[in-house]
Amino acid sequence: MNGAESVVRTLVDSGVDVCFGNPGTSEMHFVSALDRVGGLRAVLGLFEGVVTGAADGYARMAGKPAATLLHLGPGLGNGLANLHNARKAGTPIVNIIGDHATTHQRFDAPLTSNVAAFAHTVSHWVASTRSARTAAADTARAVQAARMPPGQVASLILPADAAWSPAERSAPPLPRVGAVTVPDTAIGHALAALRSGESAALLLRGDVLRGDSLITAGRIAASTGARLLCDTFAPRIERGAGRPSIERMPYRAEQALAFLSGTRHLILVGAQAPVAFFAYPDQPSELTPTGCEPLVLSHPHEDGPAALWALADALRVSTAAARNAHRPPDLPLDGPLDTEAVMRVVGHLLPEYAIISDESISAGFAHYPLLETAAPHDYLQLTGGSIGDGMPVATGAAIACPDRKVVTLQGDGSAMYTLQALWTQARERLDVTTVIYANRSYRVLLEELAGVKAGDAGATARTMLDLHDPCLDWVKLAEGMGVEAVRVDTRQAFTSAFRTAMARRGPMLIEALV
Amino acid sequence: MNGAESVVRTLVDSGVDVCFGNPGTSEMHFVSALDRVGGLRAVLGLFEGVVTGAADGYARMAGKPAATLLHLGPGLGNGLANLHNARKAGTPIVNIIGDHATTHQRFDAPLTSNVAAFAHTVSHWVASTRSARTAAADTARAVQAARMPPGQVASLILPADAAWSPAERSAPPLPRVGAVTVPDTAIGHALAALRSGESAALLLRGDVLRGDSLITAGRIAASTGARLLCDTFAPRIERGAGRPSIERMPYRAEQALAFLSGTRHLILVGAQAPVAFFAYPDQPSELTPTGCEPLVLSHPHEDGPAALWALADALRVSTAAARNAHRPPDLPLDGPLDTEAVMRVVGHLLPEYAIISDESISAGFAHYPLLETAAPHDYLQLTGGSIGDGMPVATGAAIACPDRKVVTLQGDGSAMYTLQALWTQARERLDVTTVIYANRSYRVLLEELAGVKAGDAGATARTMLDLHDPCLDWVKLAEGMGVEAVRVDTRQAFTSAFRTAMARRGPMLIEALV
Repeated sequence: MNGAESVVRTLVDSGVDVCFGNPGTSEMHFVSALDRVGGLRAVLGLFEGVVTGAADGYARMAGKPAATLLHLGPGLGNGLANLHNARKAGTPIVNIIGDHATTHQRFDAPLTSNVAAFAHTVSHWVASTRSARTAAADTARAVQAARMPPGQVASLILPADAAWSPAERSAPPLPRVGAVTVPDTAIGHALAALRSGESAALLLRGDVLRGDSLITAGRIAASTGARLLCDTFAPRIERGAGRPSIERMPYRAEQALAFLSGTRHLILVGAQAPVAFFAYPDQPSELTPTGCEPLVLSHPHEDGPAALWALADALRVSTAAARNAHRPPDLPLDGPLDTEAVMRVVGHLLPEYAIISDESISAGFAHYPLLETAAPHDYLQLTGGSIGDGMPVATGAAIACPDRKVVTLQGDGSAMYTLQALWTQARERLDVTTVIYANRSYRVLLEELAGVKAGDAGATARTMLDLHDPCLDWVKLAEGMGVEAVRVDTRQAFTSAFRTAMARRGPMLIEALV
Repeated sequence: MNGAESVVRTLVDSGVDVCFGNPGTSEMHFVSALDRVGGLRAVLGLFEGVVTGAADGYARMAGKPAATLLHLGPGLGNGLANLHNARKAGTPIVNIIGDHATTHQRFDAPLTSNVAAFAHTVSHWVASTRSARTAAADTARAVQAARMPPGQVASLILPADAAWSPAERSAPPLPRVGAVTVPDTAIGHALAALRSGESAALLLRGDVLRGDSLITAGRIAASTGARLLCDTFAPRIERGAGRPSIERMPYRAEQALAFLSGTRHLILVGAQAPVAFFAYPDQPSELTPTGCEPLVLSHPHEDGPAALWALADALRVSTAAARNAHRPPDLPLDGPLDTEAVMRVVGHLLPEYAIISDESISAGFAHYPLLETAAPHDYLQLTGGSIGDGMPVATGAAIACPDRKVVTLQGDGSAMYTLQALWTQARERLDVTTVIYANRSYRVLLEELAGVKAGDAGATARTMLDLHDPCLDWVKLAEGMGVEAVRVDTRQAFTSAFRTAMARRGPMLIEALV
């Protein structure tokens, strides 16, 4: 057994069974070990942003980490943006990053870099294996670190000689560190707020937005009149029929302040107190209005579900949660396509237990409520603002949940960052339908230019925000990577295309001119 | 004048007149300033790897830095791989990286990260502006740092409030720090080696591979019998008719050792002593064979051209340099296309003073000599091993040299990393012909798998190195970004397509099935 084999064996024994990768020479022993060890499904991405984004999407749905396999500092560099998103989502990921052999590192060969420095930018945990004999133990620690609540980015640097040299054995899985119990005092404070008779809201993030916890939150809301809120960008929410309705924090600072206006107690369950996405001249960064007091029920690493349960118990909640009816939005009348019509069609035709990966950016803000009464589904969002996660996250989610339809709602500007994800969807025959909102601009930036009071956009400024010259042809781009595609510009044509996509399996792309 | 305007004004006054960018909200004041200040050409890339690679290609040809405009840590993250290549090339680049307003940074908003930590991975110089009043001075220092010999990556972090707040004035350009004079002792040692009667070679890198310096090196070689060598991957070489012939170090360690075998004195002119690209089990990292002594004539930051001149003077060289004749390779007979035939056609039809950006990886090693006697041209290579620089470097070179034909020789696996470069080529109407070597695999890795003795490739390992399922359609990918394209699989068809491309202006892509 060599070091690489001991690493793969340890990953598998620790419950990691998928590895998204884009390897190079220093990872060849790891690649070769995959066949000899078995149990680790290898999924190739043609760019590392696809690899890391897919690992994020996989873990959000599977509830456990995937591994990534990356090639030295620059290969990791290409994956940093989506690891940033994963870090902000609290997603567990185990990065295995190949490096030069330890004996080779001092020579400043072309690919030599400070791999650990790259890793520290986005990782909660970084280690560099120094010998084949410690590689397996380091791997077990990396998996343990990744699974620390709520989920961490763990990066293990594996020098080539630690992969190719002899190892004694693999390492057994390490105990899983559980979420910390929320202290009674925190529950007491939340209880007092909810019993005060003053207006209250629960801002939920993490696993309390799913399953029994979500229903418990709904029961508390129904019983106390408290509002249920989620962040503007949440990692994963169970939405649609049968689930309690969750209000989404608005993106714009002034809207967020108005949204919370009149709320006296803001109870944070796995969430931070809300802050503006960007700063703007003469606008506050903190979005809790005067008179609204944030109160931590549970920090992200604490056991939010148990705290919610204890809270409901203490409140003696007997009320059932208000659950959304199954009343999908009506199909739009025919006419030119727009973003609202797209969301209506998606909401109307969405099959049960679909997964939506939403990176529609500007298009998505207004139409979020339309999916409230659609069929039950999971809703995944861009958590770190680093664009280019929509299609990779969908790719990973489809690997995690092969029996569920995945729908990507994707802005065209962001889509260009990681369009290589479509190739992996084709190779793995993933059941993903991608809707490209082709507005042919960085639309959100046109709005932001006004928001930051940067003055009118001159001719040069406009060229930096406009994608019309030339127009991207998403049908050709998708077909170029083996994904069937169609372009539509009317509501009827979009309805027909989306209906077709929902009725079949496998990857498909719809370029929606909006 | 606000901080952003003072930065743009200072860049222009310091001689920076092109900015490759992909801005976000925090850069909107910079974008808006472009129209009010004038003099800085803004070129949009749809992914930051295109932006930074284009800045590298621009500066290699223009001999001065471009600016880049990048969006916080993740935006910079996407550009790190090609900044790594630029760092290894000794390319001057000025990165302007927007960050949250200073007042906003403590709130851990979704896009908050340690921007400086991202920057330090690839930069020689990093600074973070803390106020609009210092932004211009910091910018002048960044340009000065970038121009430090042989060229550095300088990263200036510009918080949004430093961009939007009032500034007093721009800053005047700072003095340019020149290359250090090589001490006489170093020239003396090289002189002794060349006069010893023992075999000697000059390993050249940097500006000594161009212009009068290259001719001087050729005269020294002709007079003393010394060999002229370059690294396996050199930033820029003037090649072809009228230039001295330069032997390229082989990629593989055992071949490199054989290549230098019998050479007693290896005189380094702006180059490092050769090292293996990767380590391999039981192979040395240092590639100077026993009995071959490396000797530094000039370090990269020293004045290599003057040292070469002094050396020629001391040697009383009267011999003319041996210059390549203009004797392009013959066109191949018709038949199935292969990599040698591609290079023959390129060499036969290449127009005078073309620029070749070569990221053909495995295809390029064997056929390098074929361009020796082609028309005079500049030859740019992947310097840091971080794949995905071929098309971006070509893009930047075409911006720097609008009157010269640019030809990209591009492996298909690498091309997928930064294919968005084609869109910028279309938007800017750049005169770039891209040849995709479509072998539909990471061919070099199939060879490396054997090289590192990782055992036979099993089924899983092969799927990680193979790009056949599905095959990429480069004609559709190019057309999807507005670039005309054609696919060929015979020598005659390639000849015809390449001839057409050389006879017209504007971007074109040829997918060569090899």
